[in-house]
Amino acid sequence: MTRTAVIAGAGVLPAAIAAELQAPFVAALEGFAPAGLTPDLTFRLERLAPFLRALADAGVGRVVFAGAVRRPERIDPALIDPATAALLPRLMAAMGQGDDATLREVVAVFEEHGFAVAGATEVVPGLVPGPGVLAGAVTPADERDAARAAAIVAALGAVDVGQGAVVQGGLCLAVEALPGTDAMLAAVAAMGPPRPAPRGGLLWKAPKPGQDRRVDLPAIGPDTLRHAAAAGLAGIAWQAGGVLLLDRAVTVRAAEAAGLFLWARG
Amino acid sequence: MTRTAVIAGAGVLPAAIAAELQAPFVAALEGFAPAGLTPDLTFRLERLAPFLRALADAGVGRVVFAGAVRRPERIDPALIDPATAALLPRLMAAMGQGDDATLREVVAVFEEHGFAVAGATEVVPGLVPGPGVLAGAVTPADERDAARAAAIVAALGAVDVGQGAVVQGGLCLAVEALPGTDAMLAAVAAMGPPRPAPRGGLLWKAPKPGQDRRVDLPAIGPDTLRHAAAAGLAGIAWQAGGVLLLDRAVTVRAAEAAGLFLWARG
Repeated sequence: MTRTAVIAGAGVLPAAIAAELQAPFVAALEGFAPAGLTPDLTFRLERLAPFLRALADAGVGRVVFAGAVRRPERIDPALIDPATAALLPRLMAAMGQGDDATLREVVAVFEEHGFAVAGATEVVPGLVPGPGVLAGAVTPADERDAARAAAIVAALGAVDVGQGAVVQGGLCLAVEALPGTDAMLAAVAAMGPPRPAPRGGLLWKAPKPGQDRRVDLPAIGPDTLRHAAAAGLAGIAWQAGGVLLLDRAVTVRAAEAAGLFLWARG
Repeated sequence: MTRTAVIAGAGVLPAAIAAELQAPFVAALEGFAPAGLTPDLTFRLERLAPFLRALADAGVGRVVFAGAVRRPERIDPALIDPATAALLPRLMAAMGQGDDATLREVVAVFEEHGFAVAGATEVVPGLVPGPGVLAGAVTPADERDAARAAAIVAALGAVDVGQGAVVQGGLCLAVEALPGTDAMLAAVAAMGPPRPAPRGGLLWKAPKPGQDRRVDLPAIGPDTLRHAAAAGLAGIAWQAGGVLLLDRAVTVRAAEAAGLFLWARG
């Protein structure tokens, strides 16, 4: 059996995936330290070819990309070795076409070098729950709020803004922007009137329409649950199949204890 | 010359319009006190016909609707006089069809009783500035941020969410939801990283697509300017012709003093 390497970017996802794998090899892009993981190897784009050889030497046969990265701001020509120099032109051309094109080209390079490329959700299917209520109970009012929130987040996604909103009684209390989900929930926790009541409403999460689901899916976990409870929400709902549920057992227990529902809406 | 009556709902707009009129007659719907104005007459729907007579007796020939109202939660049959009883069925039928239908029917009733009905922006054209930079200077980066914010607010308007957003360097820092513009600007004022820099960016305001522009236009005024300055913004931009500028001279002076631009984007 070959080893699986987690090609780790920033955030908690790489550790969540590594925790589910047997003897994972962890490689991190320089400058994007994964939370709670010590990389076996750090790499940079200028040394891509030696990095691919090092993975093979470590017995890696499959790779999974996990966590947030950005395209590098600069390439240092002095660091480029001849084998990488042969790969860089196509990668740099792809970078000029955007994140999706870059990812496709990176995947192609790994595959050409004999690695299988798996999505995080293939490696750990339990990370992305299918449709169903995982904790608590969903009322018709919650169903209406989820439908309204889904329409709002879909409209926002079309203009490449956040992946979340808070809706209560049909009213949009907050919309996720750059500061992210936790900041949005903190604002709701601090909100008095015009909020219709201090308790109620839901957090909705969904990926952007057309987003490549192998990377950068929105995630829910114990921290989200804690912030949602502090904001007085009735629960958290999300697009089933499009959102990662981190620390599932812990998050479900915390939701039950706090009286919040968790709903993967199909 | 006949007098103009301001049929006033809640908020600062009725006072702003009355201030621009010669000897305005101010009538307020009971329960919706205009800010900073003492009504000459308070009316309620059950006494609509006597109210229309009182307006004519006061020499009113033209009316302008200004400020926020909601449909009454209940009609008290004991208060209805016979002449109003003849008008109410059509108004109540319109109320069942929504705010736009109600407004159209109210306008029709006033016109049938001999009053000219004017939009606030007809009565005081200066309240809705045409395209142009009213204070400060707009850079190409500001132009890009305004274009991005306009796309975001248009997408939100299509799902009937707020009329504003804050964008800096192409990044959407905040989106207006139920708590309104001032709450959004307070959140930006309190925001550290991931905001790209503590100063910069703009507030964008625009009406919802398809909104009836005789009522409920978004407004900018001295308070907005103060909050935008506290949030470190470079300026305020809005859809020219679709946003009310209250206290124009005061707001423009405050913008110049604070070094913010004011831009009605055409």
